[in-house]
Amino acid sequence: MSQNSTIRSREQDYSQWYLDVIREAKLADYSPVKGSMVLRPHGFAIWEAMKGDLDARFKATGHVNAYFPLFIPMSFLSKEAEHVEGFAKECAVVTHHRLRSAEDGGVEPDPAAKLEEPLIVRPTSETIIWHMYGQWIDSWRDLPILINQWANVVRWEMKTRPFLRTAEFLWQEGHTAHATELEAVEEAERMLGVYADFARETLAVPVVTGIKSSSERFAGAVETYTIEAMMQNGWALQAGTSHFLGQNFARAFDVTFQNEEGERDLVWATSWGVSTRLVGAVIMTHSDDTGLVLPPALAPIQVVVVPIWRKEKEREEVQSFARDLVGRLASAGVRAHCDARDKLKPGAKYFEWERKGVPLRLEVGPRDLAKRSAFAKRRTGGDKFGIHEDELVATVNDVLDGIQEELLENALAARAARTFEVDSYAAFKVALREQGGFYVVPWKDDAANEATIKTETKATLRCYPIDRQAEAAGRRCFFSDEPATHMALFARAY
Amino acid sequence: MSQNSTIRSREQDYSQWYLDVIREAKLADYSPVKGSMVLRPHGFAIWEAMKGDLDARFKATGHVNAYFPLFIPMSFLSKEAEHVEGFAKECAVVTHHRLRSAEDGGVEPDPAAKLEEPLIVRPTSETIIWHMYGQWIDSWRDLPILINQWANVVRWEMKTRPFLRTAEFLWQEGHTAHATELEAVEEAERMLGVYADFARETLAVPVVTGIKSSSERFAGAVETYTIEAMMQNGWALQAGTSHFLGQNFARAFDVTFQNEEGERDLVWATSWGVSTRLVGAVIMTHSDDTGLVLPPALAPIQVVVVPIWRKEKEREEVQSFARDLVGRLASAGVRAHCDARDKLKPGAKYFEWERKGVPLRLEVGPRDLAKRSAFAKRRTGGDKFGIHEDELVATVNDVLDGIQEELLENALAARAARTFEVDSYAAFKVALREQGGFYVVPWKDDAANEATIKTETKATLRCYPIDRQAEAAGRRCFFSDEPATHMALFARAY
Repeated sequence: MSQNSTIRSREQDYSQWYLDVIREAKLADYSPVKGSMVLRPHGFAIWEAMKGDLDARFKATGHVNAYFPLFIPMSFLSKEAEHVEGFAKECAVVTHHRLRSAEDGGVEPDPAAKLEEPLIVRPTSETIIWHMYGQWIDSWRDLPILINQWANVVRWEMKTRPFLRTAEFLWQEGHTAHATELEAVEEAERMLGVYADFARETLAVPVVTGIKSSSERFAGAVETYTIEAMMQNGWALQAGTSHFLGQNFARAFDVTFQNEEGERDLVWATSWGVSTRLVGAVIMTHSDDTGLVLPPALAPIQVVVVPIWRKEKEREEVQSFARDLVGRLASAGVRAHCDARDKLKPGAKYFEWERKGVPLRLEVGPRDLAKRSAFAKRRTGGDKFGIHEDELVATVNDVLDGIQEELLENALAARAARTFEVDSYAAFKVALREQGGFYVVPWKDDAANEATIKTETKATLRCYPIDRQAEAAGRRCFFSDEPATHMALFARAY
Repeated sequence: MSQNSTIRSREQDYSQWYLDVIREAKLADYSPVKGSMVLRPHGFAIWEAMKGDLDARFKATGHVNAYFPLFIPMSFLSKEAEHVEGFAKECAVVTHHRLRSAEDGGVEPDPAAKLEEPLIVRPTSETIIWHMYGQWIDSWRDLPILINQWANVVRWEMKTRPFLRTAEFLWQEGHTAHATELEAVEEAERMLGVYADFARETLAVPVVTGIKSSSERFAGAVETYTIEAMMQNGWALQAGTSHFLGQNFARAFDVTFQNEEGERDLVWATSWGVSTRLVGAVIMTHSDDTGLVLPPALAPIQVVVVPIWRKEKEREEVQSFARDLVGRLASAGVRAHCDARDKLKPGAKYFEWERKGVPLRLEVGPRDLAKRSAFAKRRTGGDKFGIHEDELVATVNDVLDGIQEELLENALAARAARTFEVDSYAAFKVALREQGGFYVVPWKDDAANEATIKTETKATLRCYPIDRQAEAAGRRCFFSDEPATHMALFARAY
């Protein structure tokens, strides 16, 4: 029920354009609780599609789902020192378990129902899960444990942005336990690969896979792997992370196992997660000034069929033909929808489905019906074209595959056009200011220098791209001129 | 890692048997937060199967999913007077949004981060959803809204029991908005039917569909519909409810719409939900002294194939045949699993899968392989029998269908055997004490008498069974001897 139904152009104001697209595609809305958003049906359907695809990939790699409690005893958070220091502080604290009637006619927390130990709403679940693993793991026979959880988590954020940064968000968190270091490292890297494949194949979002520097590493991890995507404005978006946790959480929660030689050993761990933030990544990779653009592999509705009629007697025939086309597509596994709403004109329907990002529209009027065909329009542009019913399924599948490919190619091209190499920090500052984008530079690992760059340019060290590390040999750091230890990717980031 | 791995018999201690089955089938575990349970992979897989089945039924009846915030402003709860009075008091209250380091080395709520208005962790979402509906609904064109949400909710409970009553639990909550009273009543009744069909067809749990008396009605509802199942001990379990909310929440949150005549009118509402409690219903309807029994339509694994070998050279052949059988079953849509674990003997595997309730086991040894067949054993009993590979899919499907039917028939027979009619309250008290079960009696609606019966016998008025109401005509209340207004179902209940 927004007053303003226009979408500002990306050129004009990228940040406002993003909010406009979300509002007009009815993806999300603001809630009365600061920082918590409502996922509206269309936005939630996109997340459901991501869930379904990822869940199948997790199961294909041997994982099972489980569910752990929302609440974590406050004392758990301080058991792993870096963990609490690094990020467990900004969280929702439950202190009472009952309300009572207040004198003003409302309600208030009942002082008689104050909890002895406050509870924390999970910001992530390593602590409670490793407490449980301590009870489930006794011998090497109990390993590995390969559990994933789909859940809501809460991290109090002062500055929020729909999908990208909200107090409550939906995500999955994998938590695995292993007998050896090698197996845990392999798991962390495997899941990074699963994320990268999913982003590329389903979201049509190409990502840089890399390793975080120590200052960007997850609190409590030995190594944090990341996938970084480039948004249309040249900013980076961290789209998923996978952590090799070493034995840190096993040590904090005293989780040991008897190995095959009969000795007791600490268990090795990983954790990995992606969230509703990915919806933001999709919006800012593919959408345009008209609204949302969804890759066909992800779109909850891939094809919308709009019947068009003028006279009442045409209506029944045209609708029946439209429904028949939807039925044929559905039988072939295409997610198709017939928009037969009575009191809305075809133009209004086109407008709505374009804003909602449906990849392909089929119009069916009396003349199309006479030819047993539909008039097709791709969301990503190009002339309209006819499809005869006999070629319907084959053509639609071709068109959808083509759009999927085109979106990925465009994203790859956009990224290539804005990925730069610079020799010096001075050149970097100028280039970043003038053209934004990704900068891959030789770098000597140094947290203080990293902080200086962030302060001076707002760019952060996104990662050490895995496939670029060999290039660091023999080069000197673009900032300190010391011998380079890594190739580093710097960019402004969400 | 429990010390005690025996399952007590139902005869010996039904209540303890229930906990033993859950522990030994690894369905759930206790968490360090009092009243919150962990859903272990096997327990969660059962809930996932329920979700998948129900979600398809919801979508087939026109509903879409969305997601609303976990936190609700405290003041929202007192907007609908009956709602807060009835059940919104025992809930988790968030008062702070940050922790700080404490002097003892731990952490504590930061007094500087106290919320101006406390937040409630949702016990149910009517209030926040109707706040949002107020922003989305303006005209009759915006109606109906048919939204469902899969979510976790929290109701502080002092006396908990896995699946049946826990502080946090998983559920779905449908919240619909309609232009007319009739449409809303029809929706509430339709969803009751969806629940009853699901319970019968998928869970093999027969239910009584009925209407709650005013004292058992949902706080804020005009009418509460319920499905009530009978557990093996003769107790009732409320397995799902559907509420016609009238205009109560629209009034509390000022949600009006312009009707087709151009006048503004309050919106009509329903809400309906089922929860992880259904897992408890399945356990207590079908399981036996050996452990869990799952209806095939629900079982995450319907068929487990166990390869048996003595000599190393047999191993490869037998495992390959077992995997081949699993592949054929999977292609035919049967959920089959090959248990090829090396270091566990076949007997231990049988024991484990029986406890976990897998409906059908296929054993494959060298002699079976020679005959290209498997040796089959049903979880619910009967002699073992051979199945040749050529008849595998057809026979397995027949057997699974047979088990599904048998479980429903057994449950129907058990319920019929323990459903009684009594003429007087005196007879009711004796019968209830001696044989438990369901009692359908003529009844004059009266909250005080209902309370007396509860105090004296612990039995509660479960519902007014919909298909029995005609029988009340001309009869007198079994308790007060006044003219009966309803036929009422009384029973002890979880």
